[in-house]
Amino acid sequence: MKEEFMKSAIALAEKGRGFTNPNPLVGAVIVKNGKIIAEGWHHKLGSLHAERDALKNAAEKNVDVRGASIYVTLEPCCHTGRQPPCTQAIIESGISEVIYGSSDPNPLVNGKGKKILEAAGIKVTAGFLKEECDKLNPVFFHYIKNKMPYVILKYAITADGQTATSKAESRWITGQLARKNVHQTRANVMAVLTGIGTAKKDNPMLNVRLDDGLEHRQPVRVVLDSHLKLNPESALVQTAKEIPVIVFCKPELTKTELIKKEVLEIRGVKVLSAKPEKNHSLLYSQLKVLGEMGIDSVLVESGGTLNGSFFFEEKGLVQELQVYIAPKIFGNDGHTIFNPVKGKGIELPSECINLGKPQIEVFGEDILLKYVLQN
Amino acid sequence: MKEEFMKSAIALAEKGRGFTNPNPLVGAVIVKNGKIIAEGWHHKLGSLHAERDALKNAAEKNVDVRGASIYVTLEPCCHTGRQPPCTQAIIESGISEVIYGSSDPNPLVNGKGKKILEAAGIKVTAGFLKEECDKLNPVFFHYIKNKMPYVILKYAITADGQTATSKAESRWITGQLARKNVHQTRANVMAVLTGIGTAKKDNPMLNVRLDDGLEHRQPVRVVLDSHLKLNPESALVQTAKEIPVIVFCKPELTKTELIKKEVLEIRGVKVLSAKPEKNHSLLYSQLKVLGEMGIDSVLVESGGTLNGSFFFEEKGLVQELQVYIAPKIFGNDGHTIFNPVKGKGIELPSECINLGKPQIEVFGEDILLKYVLQN
Repeated sequence: MKEEFMKSAIALAEKGRGFTNPNPLVGAVIVKNGKIIAEGWHHKLGSLHAERDALKNAAEKNVDVRGASIYVTLEPCCHTGRQPPCTQAIIESGISEVIYGSSDPNPLVNGKGKKILEAAGIKVTAGFLKEECDKLNPVFFHYIKNKMPYVILKYAITADGQTATSKAESRWITGQLARKNVHQTRANVMAVLTGIGTAKKDNPMLNVRLDDGLEHRQPVRVVLDSHLKLNPESALVQTAKEIPVIVFCKPELTKTELIKKEVLEIRGVKVLSAKPEKNHSLLYSQLKVLGEMGIDSVLVESGGTLNGSFFFEEKGLVQELQVYIAPKIFGNDGHTIFNPVKGKGIELPSECINLGKPQIEVFGEDILLKYVLQN
Repeated sequence: MKEEFMKSAIALAEKGRGFTNPNPLVGAVIVKNGKIIAEGWHHKLGSLHAERDALKNAAEKNVDVRGASIYVTLEPCCHTGRQPPCTQAIIESGISEVIYGSSDPNPLVNGKGKKILEAAGIKVTAGFLKEECDKLNPVFFHYIKNKMPYVILKYAITADGQTATSKAESRWITGQLARKNVHQTRANVMAVLTGIGTAKKDNPMLNVRLDDGLEHRQPVRVVLDSHLKLNPESALVQTAKEIPVIVFCKPELTKTELIKKEVLEIRGVKVLSAKPEKNHSLLYSQLKVLGEMGIDSVLVESGGTLNGSFFFEEKGLVQELQVYIAPKIFGNDGHTIFNPVKGKGIELPSECINLGKPQIEVFGEDILLKYVLQN
C-alpha cells in the first residue's frame, strides 16, 4: 500500500468539485505491479462512480485489471442508486484488493461494502489516509449524518474588527479578489441565506457573478423574514423566477401578511414557515426544512444580528466560519456598533465559542481565515 | 556580484538582533576568487562594526584580503563615532571592491562613504539587494530620518473583532505562544507605552517575562496620564527603581497633582510633560520627547481610546500595526463597545487608513497580521 496512490486518487476526486453535489467527490486509481494502470473519478451528479469510471478507463485502454488493486477515496457503494453498486463491478472485474479512505457516512451502509467485497474473497483495507479523504467531502459527510445542511458563515471585517463605517457604509470592505472568492464559494453551495435586515439595507442579488463558466451554478437564495417585509420590487424578488428564492416567515400570519405572502408567491417566491421544535431554536427548524428539501450546504451572508443568532441561539448550527480581514482601519465613534457578531455575548473569555486553528488564504491584500468548527 | 554573498551578509546581520539598538544590524562578508574568506557582523552596541569585524576575522585566519571584495548590508561609515570610520579600515586593508545594500539614512552622511572609497580607487556598488538590506533596520532608518521613535501598535482581538467580553474581561484573548511573542517584541523595543485607562484597569507590569535570557532587555515603561492618576501602589510604580517608568502629564498641574507628582518621583518615576507643537497633536510631541531621549522604538499596548488617538489624531504616528487574532467568538450585547480602535471613525470606506498587505505569522491557534504602514 502506498500513500502516493491514494494521493493520486484524492487529486482525481478534486476534479469533480462543484459538479457532484449532493454526491461526494470520489477518486480511484487501479494499480498493478506498482504502477497506476487506470484512473477514474466521479465527474458530475448522475455520471459513473469513480470505481466504474476507472474500470471503464482500463477497458478502453485494454489493460487487464485481474489481480490488480484499486485505491478509492470512499468506501465502494453496495446499493443501487443512480448507479448500480460498485461492489458488484469490482467483484466482476477480477480486482483482488480494495484500499479505501473514508467509510460511508450513512450508518445503514457503513461497512457493508467492505463485507460484500470480503465475502467475495477480496482483500480490503479501510481507513487508509482517512483524514485526507474525509476532507474531500465535509459537506457530504455532515449532511448524510445529520440531515442538516453544512453551514458556512462568512463575514468581512477591517483590521479593527468593523463591518461598516460610522455612517453604516460597507461597500466595500474587501478588494476585488476576495469578493470574487465569495462568488466562488456561492457557486459551491446549494443555498445562500440572509436576514431581512441585510436584504432591506443592501438589496443584494446573492447570486454567482463570475466570468469563468460557473454562472450556471446558482444557489437558491433564502431570506429569513418573519413578518414578510421583503420588498416585492427588490432584486431578489424580481429575479425569483430565474433563480429560486425561499422566504421563511412565522407560522401564523396576519391578514396584511397573508396578502404580502400572495404577492411574493405570484412573483415566484416560495414562502415557507418552520415549526419550532422542542429544545431547538427556530433557526434549527428552518435549516432542517432546507435539509429536507435536499439542500446540503448553506452560505450565511448576513449582518451581526443574524450572525449572533447562528452562534448563540443554539450550539452546532455553524460548521465553518470564513472571516475576511481587510487591511483597513475604520475606527468607531461609539454611537453605532458594527460588529460582525452581536447577540447576547459571553461574560468570561473561557465561555467563548472556540473555533480552533484556521486555514489561511490570501486574496490580494486581504486575508481569509477559515475556521472549521468541531461541534 | 552574487546575491548569495549579500544574503550571507544579511543572515550575519540578523545575529545582532536585540543587541545593537540604537545602532543598526549590519553584516559583511569578504569574498575572493568566488569564495567567502571572512565574515563579520555588528555584535552589539559598542562592539566592532561589521566591516571591521570581518577584517579582524580575516586577520585571525591569516587570509590575504588584498584585491578582495566586501559585501556589506549598510554603506560603510565615514565618521568617527563609537568606532573609527570603516571607510578608513577598508582602504587600509587593500580591499578593491565594496558592494553595499542600504545607504546611510542620515542625509548628512548618505553617499559620503561611497565617495571616500571611490576617491581611494575602490570600485563601489551601492543599493545591491537594497530592499532586503533595508528590511533589516526599519527602526533605525525611521529613527535617524525622523528623530521620532518607530511606533508599533499592537492589539489582540477575537475572530469577531472583540477585545473583551460583555463584562470587560480580556484575560486572555490569545494563547500562550502569542503572549510569549509579545514579550519577545517588548524585548526588541526601547519603550512600551500605554494609557492611564489600561494602566488602572489591568495594573500591568509591561516588562519582559521570558525564560531564555532576554529578561535583561527590559524596555522603559511609559504611561500617558494627563492628571497623574497612576496609583503609587501599582505594579509599574512599585518597580520603577528597577525598570524605568516615564509618566507624561499635562504641562500645568493643580496643587493636588503637584503632590501626586512628588509622590511618583520619590518612588522613582520620571514625570514629564511635552509642549504641544503647532500643527501637531500632543501625542506627536510626547513621542518627540521620547525620541530626544534616545528611544528609537515604542510598542503601544493600550485600549481602543488611545489606539484611536494614535490613528486619528495625526497621520504618520504609527509605523507598524500588529493584530493578533484569536480563534474565538465573544459576541457583543450592544451595551458596551470593546473595539480595538475607537476615536472619531471614518464615514466612507474610501476614507479609511490603508494598511497594505500584511505579513502573516502563526502562534499555536492564533494568527498575527503585521502591517507595515506606508506613511
